[in-house]
Amino acid sequence: MNLDNALKLVKEQLTEHRYQHTLGVVETALALAEQYGADKKKAELAAAFHDYAKFRPKDEMKEIIINQGMPQDLLDYNTELWHAPVGAFLVEKEAGVNDDEILDAIRYHTSGRPKMTLLDKIIYLADYIEPGRNFPGVEEVRILAKENLDKALIRSIQNTIIFLIKKNQPIYPDTFLTYNSLVTVKED
Amino acid sequence: MNLDNALKLVKEQLTEHRYQHTLGVVETALALAEQYGADKKKAELAAAFHDYAKFRPKDEMKEIIINQGMPQDLLDYNTELWHAPVGAFLVEKEAGVNDDEILDAIRYHTSGRPKMTLLDKIIYLADYIEPGRNFPGVEEVRILAKENLDKALIRSIQNTIIFLIKKNQPIYPDTFLTYNSLVTVKED
Repeated sequence: MNLDNALKLVKEQLTEHRYQHTLGVVETALALAEQYGADKKKAELAAAFHDYAKFRPKDEMKEIIINQGMPQDLLDYNTELWHAPVGAFLVEKEAGVNDDEILDAIRYHTSGRPKMTLLDKIIYLADYIEPGRNFPGVEEVRILAKENLDKALIRSIQNTIIFLIKKNQPIYPDTFLTYNSLVTVKED
Repeated sequence: MNLDNALKLVKEQLTEHRYQHTLGVVETALALAEQYGADKKKAELAAAFHDYAKFRPKDEMKEIIINQGMPQDLLDYNTELWHAPVGAFLVEKEAGVNDDEILDAIRYHTSGRPKMTLLDKIIYLADYIEPGRNFPGVEEVRILAKENLDKALIRSIQNTIIFLIKKNQPIYPDTFLTYNSLVTVKED
């Protein structure tokens, strides 16, 4: 699978707005992979496919979560989390991508996970800071990303948790555990 | 055990500053118990004893956590969490208090827990808002506590999590599970 073929498949699944976002994530993931020494081909494919399931009907996503033995607590939290693990499943099934590193980076691009791989971190962060993103705090994370991948990642997760808490929204446990794993290992 | 005897035992364990804080927690817990219909005698005893172990040596607390089969992950998080479960153990052992509701309220007064009892909530909140407390946001929680116990509790936990996150400190899992359980059940 090369990038052009991946983007052709993805374009059919997304709105134009979300497709433009995806192109931004590809560009940013490539730059981060170059800077931090990750596999560039895997980074661009994971980025291209990260939102593959974004517009699938909720009923279909719910059925996949149940039938594929995914963590059932996903069903108790924000439906926005579902497209990531469901996307990993569908990208393998429908697009034939079977590289576990790529599939994991898609699977954990919204929740994070403790012990994120370099590719996980790059996709999570590229999704957060790609050029089309515009929200309070994003510029600070862009600057951090040029200096230190983990510090940028920590800041983006901190921003996300604080944003959700201020909206009285529950926090998916993996997100908190990701935060804890990063600040416990790397204190400053 | 009456309040006077409890306070005599507690006074020996604490600094004068912490003892004055304890008197504030007793006063506030009594008022909250009156307002929200909790057992006033249990509220005053739990409040009196809540910081009983606050100044025990860390080595002693660590040994108790290990030997008494308490959650071992406590050892991976801030030592400030330890005095609560260790306190519940010592208050039973040394002061002879054996009421489970009182001991639980002491045990969970720092971390919280999912499905907090009314008494748990009162002690957690009294500890946060007693008259001697003075930090950003405390006045808002005092006002909320007069209107709605759960809303005040949620706000105090939100403040605590955001405070820790901004300091790059890990969050003890029970604390965010407490937060999740409260916002999931009671949305507004």
